[in-house]
Amino acid sequence: MKLATLNDGTRDGKLVVVSKDITRYCAADNIAPTLQAALDNWDQVAPKLEALYRDVEHQTVPCERFHEREAHSPLPRAYQWADGSAYINHVELVRKARGAEVPESFYHDPLMYQGGSDDFLPPRADIPLGDTAWGCDMEGEVAVITDDVPMGVSAQDAAGHIKLVMLVNDVSLRGLIPGELAKGFGFFQSKPASAFSPVAVTPDELGDAWQDSVIKLPLNVDYNGAPFGRANAGVDATFNLAQLVAHAAKTRNLGAGAIIGSGTVSNQDADGGPGKPVSEGGLGYSCIAEIRMIETIADGEAKTRFMAPGDSVKVWMDDSEGHSIFGAIEQNVVQA
Amino acid sequence: MKLATLNDGTRDGKLVVVSKDITRYCAADNIAPTLQAALDNWDQVAPKLEALYRDVEHQTVPCERFHEREAHSPLPRAYQWADGSAYINHVELVRKARGAEVPESFYHDPLMYQGGSDDFLPPRADIPLGDTAWGCDMEGEVAVITDDVPMGVSAQDAAGHIKLVMLVNDVSLRGLIPGELAKGFGFFQSKPASAFSPVAVTPDELGDAWQDSVIKLPLNVDYNGAPFGRANAGVDATFNLAQLVAHAAKTRNLGAGAIIGSGTVSNQDADGGPGKPVSEGGLGYSCIAEIRMIETIADGEAKTRFMAPGDSVKVWMDDSEGHSIFGAIEQNVVQA
Repeated sequence: MKLATLNDGTRDGKLVVVSKDITRYCAADNIAPTLQAALDNWDQVAPKLEALYRDVEHQTVPCERFHEREAHSPLPRAYQWADGSAYINHVELVRKARGAEVPESFYHDPLMYQGGSDDFLPPRADIPLGDTAWGCDMEGEVAVITDDVPMGVSAQDAAGHIKLVMLVNDVSLRGLIPGELAKGFGFFQSKPASAFSPVAVTPDELGDAWQDSVIKLPLNVDYNGAPFGRANAGVDATFNLAQLVAHAAKTRNLGAGAIIGSGTVSNQDADGGPGKPVSEGGLGYSCIAEIRMIETIADGEAKTRFMAPGDSVKVWMDDSEGHSIFGAIEQNVVQA
Repeated sequence: MKLATLNDGTRDGKLVVVSKDITRYCAADNIAPTLQAALDNWDQVAPKLEALYRDVEHQTVPCERFHEREAHSPLPRAYQWADGSAYINHVELVRKARGAEVPESFYHDPLMYQGGSDDFLPPRADIPLGDTAWGCDMEGEVAVITDDVPMGVSAQDAAGHIKLVMLVNDVSLRGLIPGELAKGFGFFQSKPASAFSPVAVTPDELGDAWQDSVIKLPLNVDYNGAPFGRANAGVDATFNLAQLVAHAAKTRNLGAGAIIGSGTVSNQDADGGPGKPVSEGGLGYSCIAEIRMIETIADGEAKTRFMAPGDSVKVWMDDSEGHSIFGAIEQNVVQA
């Protein structure tokens, strides 16, 4: 099924069930007022939402027009947002760009940072930027929402705790990262509010594209209206999303509604190289940091600047028939 | 006023107003069902809670006996938990212990990590430990809860956004820290679920002890029943809590109910040295890592081991007349 949260002026919005083609919705707040409330009691609530979804699909309940621009992030605020870094090509490029080594441990122990989850941006909201020198970047990613996950869960069991899948633009402030990482405590100011796709879907909605807890489809990223990234989320993932959930739960429980991200989707070239821009026939990049590194390797310096007020990014994913699965994240950078 | 959250079997518990001497409570769920709900609408709700607090103090409403053991952490789960490291003595000792430098930036730019907030431990709950080799440690700290804080807030204005104050035991897994920090993304598995004091109080409850957004009172830490730490939270704080809130909000808003911690409370000796154990007439330590470093400096090796199943910690703070302000965090380590 497909779920969304409409902005009704409250902090947590209103839960709705969305049609498969994401053109229509039916309010679900008589089943659960918010998505968090649904996740808090998922085993009881999900069957009722599934029944409503069938009614929406069969058009046996009154529906209204679904406008992606009226949607919040599925969880407008969450109790947990942890972002992995599953795509080694991204890690290698970004680290190369800041002169840092890829830790050996990365190849068997996922990188993951704890993100801020108290104030997500809606999928069509502006990205407020305090200072262009902060080096604003997008990161196109896949994220999952879990139910209650017990401490010490295995990756195999973690897969069953993945209840919903969505996309995320993990906004990053590249100019603040080196200073923060040098302090040793990881990202904080360099990871401001992220935005999630208008629609979250159950894994079964992805059909054959959901395999071994990754989505085997291209993630589309457009930058200022031009194709920028077409990397396949099912390729070059060193860790799948179930492994990332298990990593997050190694020393603690995860509460219902925990969001775990894949990290920036990134593919190597067919020849094993770091990948060409879309304009040169490659699969491109899901963030600007990668193309800057490619430029630095090719020309000795980065030409593409980071995002500034007026720049725009669009992130979405189509199914094998070309239909948008999650709706689109579309954001403009504005001066804060 | 003083507030607590009683465990009523729900995820977020039931909001109650507690008497100043923390012996009695009156349910406040007719005003706001949960503390988060109160914080979501603080300007409207707080005056009603204050009125009820006056009634509780004047014994003009029926009250019930308040048992600290029945309390959740004031926010059993929260949308934001960020922990600073305001006490330089702690940072210098812990870094010395792992052979790391104190970054120069620390003296003007706070260290802060993003903690997990989806599954806090109640103040009397056991600390589940998967493996003694993880090096389980307590960290006694002060924490504040804010209302909505706008991105870019000044430290001066941030002070006004501090609505509640409480204590925290920020459980740390020292054995996992070096590996995680080497990966560059900061703490994650090394910071499992923390526990907060049974009672959260408005800053005015602290009277003259609340000065310039720090508490000028000793934080008491007992370990296995013996005095372990008596460091004063108002001494040697390089940053106050308002500065830490402003740091957290530099590039993003903080949502109502955000929790910001002080980091481990730690005092230097009167002579500027790193501080003696309580048993030797010093103010002791709010975590085990510090005494281990003192031992290493004195004897070439740490004698005090980290916590193992059966070990217990108690964290509390008395007012100038010896009355417990927040109730006590009392936890035993158990095998997970």
